[in-house]
Amino acid sequence: MKIDKSVLNKNKLALLGSIVQEIPPELELSNIEFEGPSIVVYVRNRKAISEHLDLAQNIAKKVRKRVVIRVSTESRLPVDEAKKKILEIAPREAGLDPNGIYFDETSGEVWVKVEKPGLIVGRGNYVRHKILAETGWRAVPMRASPLESKVLREVVAGTLKQSEYRLEFLRRLGDRIHRDVIFKNNYVRITALGGFREVGRSSILVETRESRLLLDMGINTGVMDDPFKAFPYIDVDSLKLEELDGVIVTHSHLDHVGLVPILYKYGYRGPLYVTKPTRELMIVMLKDLIEVSRRSGRYLPFTEKDLTTMILHTITVEYDEVTDVAPDIKLTMYNAGHILGSAIVHLHVGMGLHNIVYTGDFKYASTRLLDRANTEFPRVETLIMESTYGSAKQQNRLEAEAELVNIVKRTVERQGIVLIPVFAVGRGQEIILILNEAMKNGLIPKLNVYVEGLVNEVTAIHTQYPEYLSRSIREAIYRGENPFTADWLKILESGVARPDIVEDRPSVIIATSGMLTGGPAVDYLKLLASDPRNSLVFVGYQAEGTLGRKIKDGMRELTMVVENKVEAVKIDLEVYSIDGFSGHSDQAELVKYAQSIKPKPRKIILNHGEPSAIDTLARLLRKALLAPGTGYTSLPEIYTPSNLDTVHLTS
Amino acid sequence: MKIDKSVLNKNKLALLGSIVQEIPPELELSNIEFEGPSIVVYVRNRKAISEHLDLAQNIAKKVRKRVVIRVSTESRLPVDEAKKKILEIAPREAGLDPNGIYFDETSGEVWVKVEKPGLIVGRGNYVRHKILAETGWRAVPMRASPLESKVLREVVAGTLKQSEYRLEFLRRLGDRIHRDVIFKNNYVRITALGGFREVGRSSILVETRESRLLLDMGINTGVMDDPFKAFPYIDVDSLKLEELDGVIVTHSHLDHVGLVPILYKYGYRGPLYVTKPTRELMIVMLKDLIEVSRRSGRYLPFTEKDLTTMILHTITVEYDEVTDVAPDIKLTMYNAGHILGSAIVHLHVGMGLHNIVYTGDFKYASTRLLDRANTEFPRVETLIMESTYGSAKQQNRLEAEAELVNIVKRTVERQGIVLIPVFAVGRGQEIILILNEAMKNGLIPKLNVYVEGLVNEVTAIHTQYPEYLSRSIREAIYRGENPFTADWLKILESGVARPDIVEDRPSVIIATSGMLTGGPAVDYLKLLASDPRNSLVFVGYQAEGTLGRKIKDGMRELTMVVENKVEAVKIDLEVYSIDGFSGHSDQAELVKYAQSIKPKPRKIILNHGEPSAIDTLARLLRKALLAPGTGYTSLPEIYTPSNLDTVHLTS
Repeated sequence: MKIDKSVLNKNKLALLGSIVQEIPPELELSNIEFEGPSIVVYVRNRKAISEHLDLAQNIAKKVRKRVVIRVSTESRLPVDEAKKKILEIAPREAGLDPNGIYFDETSGEVWVKVEKPGLIVGRGNYVRHKILAETGWRAVPMRASPLESKVLREVVAGTLKQSEYRLEFLRRLGDRIHRDVIFKNNYVRITALGGFREVGRSSILVETRESRLLLDMGINTGVMDDPFKAFPYIDVDSLKLEELDGVIVTHSHLDHVGLVPILYKYGYRGPLYVTKPTRELMIVMLKDLIEVSRRSGRYLPFTEKDLTTMILHTITVEYDEVTDVAPDIKLTMYNAGHILGSAIVHLHVGMGLHNIVYTGDFKYASTRLLDRANTEFPRVETLIMESTYGSAKQQNRLEAEAELVNIVKRTVERQGIVLIPVFAVGRGQEIILILNEAMKNGLIPKLNVYVEGLVNEVTAIHTQYPEYLSRSIREAIYRGENPFTADWLKILESGVARPDIVEDRPSVIIATSGMLTGGPAVDYLKLLASDPRNSLVFVGYQAEGTLGRKIKDGMRELTMVVENKVEAVKIDLEVYSIDGFSGHSDQAELVKYAQSIKPKPRKIILNHGEPSAIDTLARLLRKALLAPGTGYTSLPEIYTPSNLDTVHLTS
Repeated sequence: MKIDKSVLNKNKLALLGSIVQEIPPELELSNIEFEGPSIVVYVRNRKAISEHLDLAQNIAKKVRKRVVIRVSTESRLPVDEAKKKILEIAPREAGLDPNGIYFDETSGEVWVKVEKPGLIVGRGNYVRHKILAETGWRAVPMRASPLESKVLREVVAGTLKQSEYRLEFLRRLGDRIHRDVIFKNNYVRITALGGFREVGRSSILVETRESRLLLDMGINTGVMDDPFKAFPYIDVDSLKLEELDGVIVTHSHLDHVGLVPILYKYGYRGPLYVTKPTRELMIVMLKDLIEVSRRSGRYLPFTEKDLTTMILHTITVEYDEVTDVAPDIKLTMYNAGHILGSAIVHLHVGMGLHNIVYTGDFKYASTRLLDRANTEFPRVETLIMESTYGSAKQQNRLEAEAELVNIVKRTVERQGIVLIPVFAVGRGQEIILILNEAMKNGLIPKLNVYVEGLVNEVTAIHTQYPEYLSRSIREAIYRGENPFTADWLKILESGVARPDIVEDRPSVIIATSGMLTGGPAVDYLKLLASDPRNSLVFVGYQAEGTLGRKIKDGMRELTMVVENKVEAVKIDLEVYSIDGFSGHSDQAELVKYAQSIKPKPRKIILNHGEPSAIDTLARLLRKALLAPGTGYTSLPEIYTPSNLDTVHLTS
């Protein structure tokens, strides 16, 4: 067995000792490597693996780490033979694509595109184990989606191309995560770098004597002219890139992920932890940010190259899966119900020293698209909770849905077109599901729904990860009733002739951007504005100064530049605004969440809200938490820190 | 005019420009140097100085900096001639000591020991100006005290010996203080490094985008076995020695100054700002700490050498004098009324961005020794206030004095001896003043008061700086009625035969240490304990576990090692404890101070108190501050942070 002695330490030696004991001699152990948060056991006798299907699981249970079994290079079949074998082994019903098999010679993994990944990794991993035993290659299934995600294809291609660097990175990271701890006397403090008593540039630094993590690193795209307002306080001393153990991003919105590439620009080469859907969605969002900045000549402090470096260092984690991210910190992500892949972050620090739950943005109510946010955790001492709607009540979601359906119905009756401007992620998909349901139930006739803008790629990513969607949608997709591939849903490529689209009436057009600040939605508005049969429906927040806000507030004439001429367009279509579709918890849901979380935190820190929202919520919580039945025995301390405040959690 | 171009910048150029204009050509300007916080103007024509007595003051007023006029080397008289001239010029009544004239050839200053310094620097500096014009040397008077301070003598000798390094240090510091500011968008945050929700290791880091300062750096001598409890959190990242602009120490108690030498041990070579009495007193305290640690074999993380380095970098400031300490921070110290030289620190940050008042330890009531703490400041946004007695009421000071006098009276009547264990600084001098007053008023007969221990040197330092004492004592000293040199006061050198002292009865013995943890007080107790005519009076706090506490709690037999034999000594003397002599504000005074401070702060941060004291005081303040007549228009935010918390003040 080959072990690089130079990187051994007490912590790793103890781990190796426990693992070696568990491995039956007939497997012929050849090496054990720490690759990122995983421990990879390399064996020579691949045939013997079929006799020990539970091995990885058993070791993982014992050492409480992610464990992967691989076959060492010399015992793997040549690529051609392996491919043949894999096609033989995979059950026909899995729908394995013969052109979708990619070998990573460095790691010994083979990525396989299948229609039903569950048939490869389901039922005790039987098929995957068989492939490993017969070929020596470890299969990693990818869902062959009816809507193909270009971004996922790029991620796979990029990883294969850089696979040697990636392996070296993972081993370097493995050494770092499993380094010995030095201090017995530890502490945990968090520093508010952005998004405290404000919304728009979320970032929190978590610091112990041993390690540091960043939770989110967002950008406020509304004030990009002033970096002091647009970026988190990245110049604080405790944020030292060479000492940063990891960056954890809760979800793909730019106010949570927008500034991560700058870390890589300035030399950070550590991991970025996200869920799989967040990985793809954040790439879409960041590419769009780079592209829009380039086109509008607006300064952005990073480039596509930094984004590529960031992707290369991204490590995905599944919901509910415990991952070591530092010698004294374990990370678990839970469903946050906000957008696809959004996560609540749980950090277990020290051996039970302290547990932090950071909600990120969350929805404590089920939507068509997603299940409601998780409330049960192994332990919680500190809850860091978003407060966006701390001071505002929202329209009831059922009423909102009924209103939307009603608008569509009336517009259809007069042969009009409904234009719905949306943000790329979340709202658009939710609208599709509502229309799907309404058609199914006969509330509106079956009609064409056109979708254009970023929302296309995003919809593809949604179909890629049904396991992240709400139970009902997930099961419908498994049954083959994928609402995102219904025949009435027309996904438009850019370059489509929009004047032709608006000839199809009645119909619905869903297009970006959500506040009419650009994108195809503005183009469609020009084409539809003057016809009173049409409707324009806002389903999200319209910020001050945007065209969306102006129209919502009553502006009834557009002055537009059309083919180098200034033209005035009358706005004669009907204008509606529905505010019940938010991906955030409303005021009542925020309070309910803090009441319901289990176990009960001793400290609650409010962030991600305007000062009035934060202060109102703090006041409400002080009253509500001791209500009968909440399970609190004493009122937790409630903090409403400002950016640049540091809170010592273990004091 | 010679100016080192390499260190010029916009800030300094602008300053130089304004200063040069003000200097009359006939003075023959030769150089302008930034020496520490002062700007030093060197001229060649010393004779012309007498025509421009207000020059330094006028420039200072214009550029708002400390300004000093000196004569360049080639125009100074040789040392021998200069000495003769100085003896001629100084008025006889000043009491100039011919053996107390020390020339510093590097700086061009001459230190002169005089009985009445006011006759040299008083009345528009007339005599000092004359000396400068006639000799080219700038006189710095030192009070020739009837009790000589050894420490002051050492400081002067040390400075003369290292005067070249000192000048180089001051010029380096001058460059640093007057460097250009980079950021227009500044902030102020403080980090609690020690002494928050506790008492014993005070330290606060003040941080802006441009600069950093430490306020105090204390040590908790009660828990020296555990550095994690004894030392402030000096491992936080924002405390980077190479970026530290200065250390400001409020007073000489070890819980505020005890760990400063470690900064110099680890390479800090920046300034330490203190008042003059604090400089000498802290040296006494730190030397004693080093000596006691050495004798008891207890680890101390620095040595006498680090203390020497620290002294070399010490810069003294006067009460109410504004000093530039960083490009964006001005420091002013005010009387705190706690012990001799104790200061309340005022920091003016930015051009009016923010003003901090940090009380350190303070007494908001007059004592015999000191005037009450200052309450009026040019501006205040944040008040950081000590809270030692936040939850406890104290005995009335007048009652306490009456009780002490009464005990002495009764003990004298039965021919006994009163033993009063005291701490080195503060309480001992206060007791001397009370006994002085009682004898003057005939409440007790005139009797010998013996003083032994560190209290000797400390008393000498008190006589050195009458201008820091209460108005009544100061005026008495100026009149020649110095209570510290009264004939009934017997200052004992170490090595005195204590058995002989206790033959003089009735009498009073004041000796260290205050909690009977060692020192001459314990020795005297052995000699006095078994005689019921004697009295033992505790006048300060007795900590858990100390001999003082045990006796106070009722222990009536001492087991002591006397000359290698274990001996039991009966405690038959009378034991009293008086708690009204504290140098801290009591609960009512704390509240009153926060009510009375002018102008009114928007934030109040409580430190230096047990959690119960802090929380009680916070509650009291929330009720008391809006009471009629306090002048508050809205309730300030009241913070009770823990160590390692950071509070963003400009949020």
